[in-house]
Amino acid sequence: MEFYPVAIEKLIEEFAKLPGIGYKTAQRLTMHVLNLPKEEVEGFADALKKARGTIKYCSVCGNYTDTDPCAICSNPNRDKSLVCVVEEPKDIISMEKVREFNGVYHVLHGVISPMLGKGPDSIKLRELVSRMNGTVKEVIVATNPNVDGEATAMYISKILKPLGVKVTRIAHGIPVGGDLEYADEVTLAKALEGRREI
Amino acid sequence: MEFYPVAIEKLIEEFAKLPGIGYKTAQRLTMHVLNLPKEEVEGFADALKKARGTIKYCSVCGNYTDTDPCAICSNPNRDKSLVCVVEEPKDIISMEKVREFNGVYHVLHGVISPMLGKGPDSIKLRELVSRMNGTVKEVIVATNPNVDGEATAMYISKILKPLGVKVTRIAHGIPVGGDLEYADEVTLAKALEGRREI
Repeated sequence: MEFYPVAIEKLIEEFAKLPGIGYKTAQRLTMHVLNLPKEEVEGFADALKKARGTIKYCSVCGNYTDTDPCAICSNPNRDKSLVCVVEEPKDIISMEKVREFNGVYHVLHGVISPMLGKGPDSIKLRELVSRMNGTVKEVIVATNPNVDGEATAMYISKILKPLGVKVTRIAHGIPVGGDLEYADEVTLAKALEGRREI
Repeated sequence: MEFYPVAIEKLIEEFAKLPGIGYKTAQRLTMHVLNLPKEEVEGFADALKKARGTIKYCSVCGNYTDTDPCAICSNPNRDKSLVCVVEEPKDIISMEKVREFNGVYHVLHGVISPMLGKGPDSIKLRELVSRMNGTVKEVIVATNPNVDGEATAMYISKILKPLGVKVTRIAHGIPVGGDLEYADEVTLAKALEGRREI
């Protein structure tokens, strides 16, 4: 019984290590790569090395960056008194797409999760506290609206309030374009609770 | 509005070029890669380059190989008088897993497809004909059992028979473990047509 040459088997294994990619898909991707022009494959390989090699965490906010501090932290037009706390770097991209927020960020790189045994020390909380040097007036906690995200928001509020910082939470409610009929009870309750005068 | 640093955006783009991988998945894979140890990412990049760099087609059968001729073609224990014709190199792996076939292969790298404007010259048919030098006694056509695969099988039969070579086709029928109730009419008709005395 003959199988793939070692170099092919190795590449299939490497693809299969990626999240959500099984052996069959890895095989299909490998066959695709073998049929590509050599320069394109080298471009892909270089992009891999370069991304991992040149990207680091911003020493201020913890975002992915190729300069330190990152482009957001070093931008003089951004409001340094307003800090938005997010779970992951990709959440910054989501926020930036809104084009509404002009403050700076803080990436926790995770959430507090008692279920998974992840306490406050497993995320970048100490770094957040050390940024409260007087210039920060408000911290908007934009962790995800699930159990861990809410618990983390509560915890942040509890440790930052004694420092005289205003801590706010992003609003929960019916998504725009959504339908009351399909909203779950918890979301609807949050929407009612957060009602405003119009 | 700030987005990802160039090196990250570039890697996302590279992942998104792969078949079946959209922007969101590419983003997730990139984030995964950024969190991997540096050596692992370099291993992946090297596997990519090496697979594309060292793998070529076997000059005899057209299979992917790192030696020429390939391990199957250069194996003295394989029966050179029996050639199994397949569409793609990955079909060889499927056949080899059966551990029943001890002949050699010929990879067409495609099928004749009038619908897609792919004629006999677009696949490795001439190479197959040139292998009919007297040692080959039987050619088993194992193209897929669909319209193009059948048409290709017919065509191969038509051009090889005048050369005195026996051309056979793999059997169609009910899959083992399958159920008559769920078999489509065409498969059932083929199964009847191919009935054997027991």
